[in-house]
Amino acid sequence: MAKNIYVETLDKTPTPMGQYELVERKGIGHPDSVADALAEEVSRALCRMYKSEFGKVLHHNTDETQIVAGMSKPAYGGGTIVNPAYIMLVGRATTYVEENGKTVSLPCIPEALKAATNYLRKTFPNLDPESEIILDAKLGQGSDDLRGVYQTSKFLANDTSFGVGYAPYSITDRLVLETEEYINGPMKKKMPQTGQDVKVMASRVGRDVTMTVACAMVDKHIEDKSAYISSIEHLKDLVYENALKIIGDEDVNLILDINTADDYDRDVLYLTCTGLSQEMGDDGSVGRGNRANGLITPFRPMSMEATSGKNPITHIGKIYNILSTQMAEDISKSTTPDAEVLVRILSQIGSPVSEPLSCSIQIVTENPRDVKKWKAEAHEIAAGYLANIDKVTENIISGKTRTF
Amino acid sequence: MAKNIYVETLDKTPTPMGQYELVERKGIGHPDSVADALAEEVSRALCRMYKSEFGKVLHHNTDETQIVAGMSKPAYGGGTIVNPAYIMLVGRATTYVEENGKTVSLPCIPEALKAATNYLRKTFPNLDPESEIILDAKLGQGSDDLRGVYQTSKFLANDTSFGVGYAPYSITDRLVLETEEYINGPMKKKMPQTGQDVKVMASRVGRDVTMTVACAMVDKHIEDKSAYISSIEHLKDLVYENALKIIGDEDVNLILDINTADDYDRDVLYLTCTGLSQEMGDDGSVGRGNRANGLITPFRPMSMEATSGKNPITHIGKIYNILSTQMAEDISKSTTPDAEVLVRILSQIGSPVSEPLSCSIQIVTENPRDVKKWKAEAHEIAAGYLANIDKVTENIISGKTRTF
Amino acid sequence: MAKNIYVETLDKTPTPMGQYELVERKGIGHPDSVADALAEEVSRALCRMYKSEFGKVLHHNTDETQIVAGMSKPAYGGGTIVNPAYIMLVGRATTYVEENGKTVSLPCIPEALKAATNYLRKTFPNLDPESEIILDAKLGQGSDDLRGVYQTSKFLANDTSFGVGYAPYSITDRLVLETEEYINGPMKKKMPQTGQDVKVMASRVGRDVTMTVACAMVDKHIEDKSAYISSIEHLKDLVYENALKIIGDEDVNLILDINTADDYDRDVLYLTCTGLSQEMGDDGSVGRGNRANGLITPFRPMSMEATSGKNPITHIGKIYNILSTQMAEDISKSTTPDAEVLVRILSQIGSPVSEPLSCSIQIVTENPRDVKKWKAEAHEIAAGYLANIDKVTENIISGKTRTF
Amino acid sequence: MAKNIYVETLDKTPTPMGQYELVERKGIGHPDSVADALAEEVSRALCRMYKSEFGKVLHHNTDETQIVAGMSKPAYGGGTIVNPAYIMLVGRATTYVEENGKTVSLPCIPEALKAATNYLRKTFPNLDPESEIILDAKLGQGSDDLRGVYQTSKFLANDTSFGVGYAPYSITDRLVLETEEYINGPMKKKMPQTGQDVKVMASRVGRDVTMTVACAMVDKHIEDKSAYISSIEHLKDLVYENALKIIGDEDVNLILDINTADDYDRDVLYLTCTGLSQEMGDDGSVGRGNRANGLITPFRPMSMEATSGKNPITHIGKIYNILSTQMAEDISKSTTPDAEVLVRILSQIGSPVSEPLSCSIQIVTENPRDVKKWKAEAHEIAAGYLANIDKVTENIISGKTRTF
Repeated sequence: MAKNIYVETLDKTPTPMGQYELVERKGIGHPDSVADALAEEVSRALCRMYKSEFGKVLHHNTDETQIVAGMSKPAYGGGTIVNPAYIMLVGRATTYVEENGKTVSLPCIPEALKAATNYLRKTFPNLDPESEIILDAKLGQGSDDLRGVYQTSKFLANDTSFGVGYAPYSITDRLVLETEEYINGPMKKKMPQTGQDVKVMASRVGRDVTMTVACAMVDKHIEDKSAYISSIEHLKDLVYENALKIIGDEDVNLILDINTADDYDRDVLYLTCTGLSQEMGDDGSVGRGNRANGLITPFRPMSMEATSGKNPITHIGKIYNILSTQMAEDISKSTTPDAEVLVRILSQIGSPVSEPLSCSIQIVTENPRDVKKWKAEAHEIAAGYLANIDKVTENIISGKTRTF
Repeated sequence: MAKNIYVETLDKTPTPMGQYELVERKGIGHPDSVADALAEEVSRALCRMYKSEFGKVLHHNTDETQIVAGMSKPAYGGGTIVNPAYIMLVGRATTYVEENGKTVSLPCIPEALKAATNYLRKTFPNLDPESEIILDAKLGQGSDDLRGVYQTSKFLANDTSFGVGYAPYSITDRLVLETEEYINGPMKKKMPQTGQDVKVMASRVGRDVTMTVACAMVDKHIEDKSAYISSIEHLKDLVYENALKIIGDEDVNLILDINTADDYDRDVLYLTCTGLSQEMGDDGSVGRGNRANGLITPFRPMSMEATSGKNPITHIGKIYNILSTQMAEDISKSTTPDAEVLVRILSQIGSPVSEPLSCSIQIVTENPRDVKKWKAEAHEIAAGYLANIDKVTENIISGKTRTF
Repeated sequence: MAKNIYVETLDKTPTPMGQYELVERKGIGHPDSVADALAEEVSRALCRMYKSEFGKVLHHNTDETQIVAGMSKPAYGGGTIVNPAYIMLVGRATTYVEENGKTVSLPCIPEALKAATNYLRKTFPNLDPESEIILDAKLGQGSDDLRGVYQTSKFLANDTSFGVGYAPYSITDRLVLETEEYINGPMKKKMPQTGQDVKVMASRVGRDVTMTVACAMVDKHIEDKSAYISSIEHLKDLVYENALKIIGDEDVNLILDINTADDYDRDVLYLTCTGLSQEMGDDGSVGRGNRANGLITPFRPMSMEATSGKNPITHIGKIYNILSTQMAEDISKSTTPDAEVLVRILSQIGSPVSEPLSCSIQIVTENPRDVKKWKAEAHEIAAGYLANIDKVTENIISGKTRTF
Repeated sequence: MAKNIYVETLDKTPTPMGQYELVERKGIGHPDSVADALAEEVSRALCRMYKSEFGKVLHHNTDETQIVAGMSKPAYGGGTIVNPAYIMLVGRATTYVEENGKTVSLPCIPEALKAATNYLRKTFPNLDPESEIILDAKLGQGSDDLRGVYQTSKFLANDTSFGVGYAPYSITDRLVLETEEYINGPMKKKMPQTGQDVKVMASRVGRDVTMTVACAMVDKHIEDKSAYISSIEHLKDLVYENALKIIGDEDVNLILDINTADDYDRDVLYLTCTGLSQEMGDDGSVGRGNRANGLITPFRPMSMEATSGKNPITHIGKIYNILSTQMAEDISKSTTPDAEVLVRILSQIGSPVSEPLSCSIQIVTENPRDVKKWKAEAHEIAAGYLANIDKVTENIISGKTRTF
């Protein structure tokens, strides 16, 4: 059996059964999520370039995109971007290599710009990347030493660090995650006047869940105030209906609020030109929003590491957060839906990424005795992930894995 | 008695008595800490300006400083900064106000630049802010709505959010925190060749603490390799000696490593021109390093909010993190050193900052019955803080309160 | 008769008959010309926006675009842009107006970015504006006072300044101008491997004209060194053939050199990825290249004013340079081809643009007595231009008038 | 006798005796002059660094500094810089060299920043470079080929180009030049309320000279409107008195205007915080202001080349403009003050700088026969300059030679 994998029970109330829960998701159009997405797109583009040129990923960490808010004047029927938001892609990359005594420079910044623009164009239909943002990039060579670790065949941990993950999502988690995915997914065709900057927060006290959705509305699809008001009502109906589907049989009492900061009397509305609050007043940066499972969950263990933009080969802060979440999800499937599975993986700097110092799997359940029967399978699942860690990396590069 | 303050016992093993503990501190010269510090200095400068002009703090959140690494060629006896690091101060501020129908513009960026330069000059004696960094600033007006909350006399929470804090520091915590403070404090005179970029990490397994210090060395004070090696040895002696004082009577077995990435044979050393790794290969941004108590403590509850740079009037992510830490510290003094005090404060958007939705105080101790006798005092301490929340703000503005 | 128009003869040898002539044209892809073009495109876009919003052009001068060279690695068959060139659009504009006590902000920067990107995409087929340049913009409000002059119905001169123009083009002028236009025009289909950065210089000593063409070649259309060499030979043949057409019956002895800095033995070639030398090593800025007639002619009177990007309503440095050139051309048609017509218009700050302090028309000819018979018509032509100065402005805004 | 030096008479009226003359000087605080100065300071700093490291000047052309105006709110007694001006140092430099198979990087940007800041601090006492400007720098490696020319011992012309100069200064020239030097020199102690942004223009019609001075006033030294008005009156008196000294016995009728755009009734005044119009509304760039003799003289031959910031070793546009002016001045001393000496030097790309294609000296005088007796000396002076061209370079590097 693989070393350093520990499965144990943990004697506490599973979070979903506790008194309080607070869960948040910054939707794909929130400035922090835009920063995360661009950081990750840049990393993926570099990975593809390195693999195509050298057959392997070279050192980089492009996890520092900074978004500076612009200025806009939204108006019914279509307003104006007065000043574009400024987006600076920042990070370390292998910008050149020495080959046979010659320096070969690599087009990191052009690849980064291309990937970022493509993402913005594809994801935000109401934003014109050419005139409504200014896109800058400062990617520099990393320090010599870090690049050294890439010369071995087995990838070595870049740091003494750790990752944490849990499963399954609680009903509060699912309400938050799936509501945002609904608004920015299947619902968009019905309501193109909803923007991508959607923030969903749910606080649960006992069985009462208050879910608050803040959704930027797109001015060109809204002709006047009454159209705005009826849009919000329509949005509320659709989200509520969808939430009921998510809840299903669960014993949850849902209260839903949409755009609570609106004040119709004072004409304070959440109206935007692009559906993105970066256009006016909201800066963003990497690692300040959702964790690798798509949520911010203060009542659960979380890693503070920015996952997006980190290299998917040696960066523990990225790999172990994703890995522990995936392990937890798989293990959870082999237990009962009520059990909370916590995975915490600790690295040892300089040791192979596939050989952590410890991989601790804790199963929180109301019947601790059950853990015994799940232990072997949990161990096997974890060992399987560690043995096939390349697969985790591949899925990150191909974009199959969520990082925010 | 003040509403919404709950004191209870929590049935778990206090963290310091658990099997594992992992604690880290990014020293004041780490790029993430430099970003934190500049963000906070800018906020404080704006507070002072607003108070001097208007008698009160106006809306701002300057928590987005971005540092892009430069390029350097360190060398024994003194090397060269080849390309300066680029530092961009970013955030939202009240850049103008309307008074009597006239627009009055406020010098936010000049005040920010001044504060940032002063801090850099005062804190990093080996850095020339004039030629070894490029300092830029993009501070824009926030969205109209957020500025509204400042027009009431009682400050209202900007968000549904929360803060967490704990006390007392464990011995692992103290080793990490006080080691960095020693190296960047009293020890500096003895060893000016140590830079400010000091990263301290300690992992405890049982009673064995492995503390790893990575300390950037300053090339101009080191004439050759043997001077470097003996400096590291000297540093190790001093830090070890100081650590023994910190440990005192505690039952701890300490292993100390300094600059483990060095490889003397391959001439890989942690040599810098400025004592700061931002000069070569390390980017930095706000909220990615230490929490408000100065530490990163994955085995304790942590808030992910960036504390530094946020406004100290309405921003829950700042105020409640600092407040909960200070409450915990005070409450802890009235219990036993072995008890772990956890404070978690939850806001209610739109309600006064001094009236949280809940202020939960959990006391973890091996003798849960003792909690009963501490309850009243804990409650009183918490109520006192909430009643005098202005004092918390004042201490932040005057720089008396740590934010990273 | 219109006041202040003076027609006189000038007793000197017409420049085309003198011993020396030196004429240069920086083609449309030269970095200084790219800067000129972008500055002018931005001004035109602002004019259109102002006219569409307010029915008139508002104050602006966007004549400060700066291009910072990038880094490229051209290679036969197609190389790589390693670092994009950085292009910053700079200038003053009316970024907001006060209307009925309200501030209306105008989208100057988005309009500027759109105009600039469109121009680049349309003009430089081998450049990808999305990934091979970084486009930034800093357009700020001008000082209050200058904006005042726009409130009158007659536009007033912004400065005590002047413009100069001459006609007709000498044969040396035409060789330079028409060679560049040929290479970047009809010839492109035959030789797509020629880039847009074409610099043509001709020095004439007596009847001997040495014309030197430096033409950036586009790597992706050139598969190897021999293809490069034969391309240059082909280019030389085509340019020579075209030059013979330009020369026609004129008594000129032409020597033609192409890419003289090439050194085939040392493999020094003028190979580029984009056909633009801004990709590697050549910065550019406004007003440093061609004058308003498309040429640099050190042996003729020239104005040093940057014409491109200036507002076409009140800016003497722009309007009078264009006006004097157009006047000279028209007047020249009514004289003999051998006569040199010089026009110099001097403004009076604060007076209407259509009422210059003096408009001096000098006719240089070998038979000074002829001037007498041309005088009245010359006067009439000049008066007509001044009376219809709005037409000059309109043609600038619609892009019909050359500015570089 | 040195080859290619031609001395001849030119049959025209010397400019100072013609009917019209227009002369302008942008003072040291005008944004275009600030750009020129910084470009030149950077070049000089690089020259010093290269000489100290390698014993010789390496390739660079740093002639592209761009100044983007800031925003200010001047007020009697001292106003506020609201947004700093943004200054970007741009150009090409030798940023690394290959030595013994190793790449040695050179600190071009830090040296540039240091030189620029020192100049600003030294020259503009009312500007705080730390908070009232943002100083950026983008200096990149030039293209390989240009660097090649530095490997020879004799420096070769970088281009087919030319320089022009004339002497002596006319009385109109001297009024303009010496008035600015007076205001920014000996007068400053008497009137610290005058800023450095001083623009002097003189137009002469016959013997009537109208001199217009626009001088930015410094708000902190001016307590109210009447103080402003009396300052302007005082300034006018001092400048007038000084102008009379300059005029001496010359037959000139002087009209003097100061700050003609002021409108006391509408409270339109030329009041600034820093004495520099870059603080509000005025951009600046290199090569757009004074020629190498300190003046803009549309009625004289001028080169359009930006002199400041060019390398002083091979750049014809710099060296020949300075050289021709110095030659003309020396030759002029050996003729009569009434004679106008014009020098025009033409380079041959690839030939040594000291061996121009032609050096044409034209002496314009009312008694053309006198030229004969001056010819030999003029020739000798010119030959002496060409033989000692290194001296010209040295004086540029040491800052003894004016470039704007």
